[in-house]
This record gives sequence, structure tokens and C-alpha cells, in this order.
Amino acid sequence: MSETAEIRPGEETVNLPAHASAGVYFIGRISTPWKSPRECPRRGDYKDGPLCQIEVFASWDAALAGLDRHSHLQILYWMDRARRDLVLQSPCHSGVTAGTFSLRSPNRPNPVASSLVALERIENNILFVRGLDCADGTPLIDIKPENCPHDSARKAPA
Amino acid sequence: MSETAEIRPGEETVNLPAHASAGVYFIGRISTPWKSPRECPRRGDYKDGPLCQIEVFASWDAALAGLDRHSHLQILYWMDRARRDLVLQSPCHSGVTAGTFSLRSPNRPNPVASSLVALERIENNILFVRGLDCADGTPLIDIKPENCPHDSARKAPA
Repeated sequence: MSETAEIRPGEETVNLPAHASAGVYFIGRISTPWKSPRECPRRGDYKDGPLCQIEVFASWDAALAGLDRHSHLQILYWMDRARRDLVLQSPCHSGVTAGTFSLRSPNRPNPVASSLVALERIENNILFVRGLDCADGTPLIDIKPENCPHDSARKAPA
Repeated sequence: MSETAEIRPGEETVNLPAHASAGVYFIGRISTPWKSPRECPRRGDYKDGPLCQIEVFASWDAALAGLDRHSHLQILYWMDRARRDLVLQSPCHSGVTAGTFSLRSPNRPNPVASSLVALERIENNILFVRGLDCADGTPLIDIKPENCPHDSARKAPA
């Protein structure tokens, strides 16, 4: 948390619960060109963003069956360098203090990020995608099929 | 897990990791008209779905500041009645066996669901929204601002 540990003017924290309510498994690892959170774009670009790799750990291999039929995916990942105790935040880019839930900042009670990505190809257990915005090494927690937002009929995938 | 504990033809499970990699805090509770997972729609409808309530627990109140400026939100919730060990699934609606990551089924290693909702109003710590698809009582884990997919310019919220 070293990069985000400072408290900026207007920011407010709460005491976190003593115990977690449920546990998350890290199921893979994301490789991107950004070595630290400071270098990351504010939001990924599934059309023009750089090609990134998502490695799915071997134990989940079978769960990838049929994924190559989808052109777009929703990726959930765990922002492991985020603060979880901030309820009011003053983002660098705006300087305006706002409630955590009115921002897409990685700093939040449950630092689960969600990106829409375009799937270019799959090689064994590695997905090659565009649209991520996280630092290299970020833990993967889920992959779901998703529609491209520019499809005229936004029909839910199965 | 009683409703989803049976294994259907073609389905395959793995042994789950012995320990969680990180912990999730339940930060609220979702109220919907569907009393069990079997009654839920396959995917929420933010235009025509029923009005549902999201209660945010009091300790996170301050994090709601500014949320009423957004017409659409992304809601993340924890499908606490899902199986986490299924890598191949044969959904009722299709009967076709597929990898877990090529489905939006609640059964997945990390049962985090994501819905786009339209925000109608906020009363104290209760959000009134359309677009959810989960059973009554589902734990809330995150709220983020999101674009309406029919906006012509899909500009990222702050």
C-alpha cells in the first residue's frame, strides 16, 4: 500500500471490520505494461489499449472451455495495493473530495475492479486481451462473457 | 447451497484451495422480489426490471456522498448460495455443458456478480434501483458509477 498510504486533504477513513465475511481465491495473474498503480490509465480501452496477458492458474483450466466463442469479456481483479478504509477521497486528477462509491478509484472496502476487454486469442491458459487498466502482477478473480457495448442489441450472454 | 448442490450430467468439479487469498467485507444487503435463486431472472433489466432496494450498512454512510449525481451504477454482490468448485457446468436453460468462465452462472470460484442498474433515488442509506437479478438478502460488496450503455459517448465516470 506504499503508493496510496498518504491521506489527502478532505479524505476520511473508517475502522475496517475485524473479520472478513467471505474469502476470495486468486485464480490467475494479469500482466500489463504498467509497473505501478501510478502509471496505470484511469480506465482501460478495449479498442485501442495495449495487448495484455491474463494467466489462468492450471487448476482452473477446464473452466476456460468455450471461452474463445466470445469476443468480449468482463474481467474482475483484486486491487491488492489499494486502501480499504477510505470513505471520502480526493483523487489527484480532480482534487474534488467525493464519496468512495461515487468514484471508480481502486481504493474501496472491497477492491474488486471490473473491466470490459476485447479477447484477441487464447494460447493454452493465457488470454490476450485489450482493455485492462491495472498494474503488472494484479491478481485475477473472475472472467465472464460480456457484450460489446456497441452491439445494437444488448442481449445477455448465456 | 442446498438449491445448487446437485451435479448435473457433464459437470466437473475441482478441489478448492485450502485457504482464501483475501477477504471480502459484506457492506450491505440487497432486497429483491425473488425469494430463492431459482426464481431469479437470468440477467437484470435496468430499464424494465422491478424496483429493488440496496441497504448500505451505517459504517459506510459517508462513502455515499455524491452518488445521487449518477443515473447508472455498477453493483457487485456476493452470490452466497453458489457452488465454487464447478469448472464445467450444464445450465438448466440450455443443457449444454460449458466452462464456468464462458457462462455468467452464479456458480464460479469467486461468486461475485455484477449488474448495471438505473438509480431512481436514495433515501438515507437505501438505494432504489432497477436492474438486479439476485435473490432477496444477497450481500452487497461494492457500488461504482457506470455509464448507461445507450449513451452515445461512452466516457468513463471519474
